Amino acid sequence: MPFSTEYMDNPHADRVRRIARLSQSRARQRSGLFLVEGPQSVRELVACRPKIVKDLYVQSQQGDTDHRRAVTEVIARILRHPNIPQIYVHYVSDAVMSQISDDSQGIVAVAEGETMQSQLHDVLESDHRDAPLTLAAFWQIRDPGNAGTVIRAADAAGCAAVIFVDDCVDALNPKVIRSTAGSIFHIPIIAMSAEGFLQSMHDADIAVVAADVHGVEGRESESLPTLIAGSTDKKESRVILFGNEARGLPESMLLQSQRIVFIPMYGKAESLNLATSAAIMLHTLAMSSHVERI
Amino acid sequence: MPFSTEYMDNPHADRVRRIARLSQSRARQRSGLFLVEGPQSVRELVACRPKIVKDLYVQSQQGDTDHRRAVTEVIARILRHPNIPQIYVHYVSDAVMSQISDDSQGIVAVAEGETMQSQLHDVLESDHRDAPLTLAAFWQIRDPGNAGTVIRAADAAGCAAVIFVDDCVDALNPKVIRSTAGSIFHIPIIAMSAEGFLQSMHDADIAVVAADVHGVEGRESESLPTLIAGSTDKKESRVILFGNEARGLPESMLLQSQRIVFIPMYGKAESLNLATSAAIMLHTLAMSSHVERI
Repeated sequence: MPFSTEYMDNPHADRVRRIARLSQSRARQRSGLFLVEGPQSVRELVACRPKIVKDLYVQSQQGDTDHRRAVTEVIARILRHPNIPQIYVHYVSDAVMSQISDDSQGIVAVAEGETMQSQLHDVLESDHRDAPLTLAAFWQIRDPGNAGTVIRAADAAGCAAVIFVDDCVDALNPKVIRSTAGSIFHIPIIAMSAEGFLQSMHDADIAVVAADVHGVEGRESESLPTLIAGSTDKKESRVILFGNEARGLPESMLLQSQRIVFIPMYGKAESLNLATSAAIMLHTLAMSSHVERI
Repeated sequence: MPFSTEYMDNPHADRVRRIARLSQSRARQRSGLFLVEGPQSVRELVACRPKIVKDLYVQSQQGDTDHRRAVTEVIARILRHPNIPQIYVHYVSDAVMSQISDDSQGIVAVAEGETMQSQLHDVLESDHRDAPLTLAAFWQIRDPGNAGTVIRAADAAGCAAVIFVDDCVDALNPKVIRSTAGSIFHIPIIAMSAEGFLQSMHDADIAVVAADVHGVEGRESESLPTLIAGSTDKKESRVILFGNEARGLPESMLLQSQRIVFIPMYGKAESLNLATSAAIMLHTLAMSSHVERI
């Protein structure tokens, strides 16, 4: 079991500085590594993607031979996972951990980012390709908390992948990862340009359903219940496309979508935020298609 | 038009300190006042509840006669609202505004809290009582951001009221108000004890539908699509009851609920957070009841 016997208690060590720097995009790009903080995310990383884990850092008191003092029950459970023997586990002091992360809750991992970027053809050629797929796409999503929340929502709704279109927040930003609550290790994340996205969806025969309240000239937006009631072709794969937090979707993308859909508002609220809208839309579509498949 | 001609530029003035203190629960209780920050919330306050506004504070440069320099277009639009002539508007310096609020975006209001607390019988006796009502209730919701988000979601889903059951976060906490994006001025907020809540729902013949994955001994939880498919009695009023962020609902409340319902998970995500779950459940129920009424 590769537990490091050396207890790390120097917050100024080079290694500690290098890990702390992974909160910055440039350091992630240069090293190819990223930081995973907190028990929930680390647990899913260890369970679902053990091969990309480079090192695990556990906050502990120096004491008994393997320094396992003062580890919470949640963290102890992670350390008993059958994948742990393949992973380098290091015990670190409080000072080292707080240097590494503001929000570790006692455990962080450093992982290799290379294979976190998925390709569309791998998703399309996977086992389930005989059944229709639902994908979730986000154009220029910028807020890390939103990005993480929508990845979690897409996972919960059983989407086959999340596509980040154009200039989005880096999916390996620690705040994004934390907000996914582990879902980033469950579902493929794909990055594409707007042009590449529209072309690929067309080539793969995946209908683009754009979320937009207003629609465009000559193409009205239809309400989500209407879309569901009118979905006769259950065999069709589709991607639900959401716009930027402030600006929504550009007209050019709406014009190239097959459908435009909005969530009806029943009270006096004008709108819902992006993350809430995405969760409602993706989950409603998932429930309606699963129910009718029964 | 009661624009104050005095320009407030002393961040240490007693009045400024008193306003800043409204971020604290004790100061709100003592004064009966609360703070509303940012253009979106202030706009809805001015439009929907003008009578409770005590004062409006607008960040501006000292200059022309009514100090209206450097006001953003969004704020200028609020100041043109037909309700503004009834309201005291004060222009304040940057230093005063940053003393008052960390997140004013140039405008805050001080309002009277007394009538923000609604009573169940007023909701039940309102105009629409002939149609079945949907209410949203939250037991021991504690996070201000969550509380605000669920109030907004309940508004968007057309709920008749939000009920905070037992020991919840103060709905007049500035963070709650900000997260409602104005919805707190659209929908009645009611506070009740758990006992009072269950008794009132029973007396008013409102079915309690508890959101819980596990259910209780002898009472399984049913999935949301199953609940909707089996809703034959559209005439029934109901309240959807959600539990605490970490602990969910206590068994005692589940045992006294008429139905227990969960949101099915289709991917590998174990769960969704409270605010997302509430939005999906409330909006799905709203869409299904509106569609079938057509």
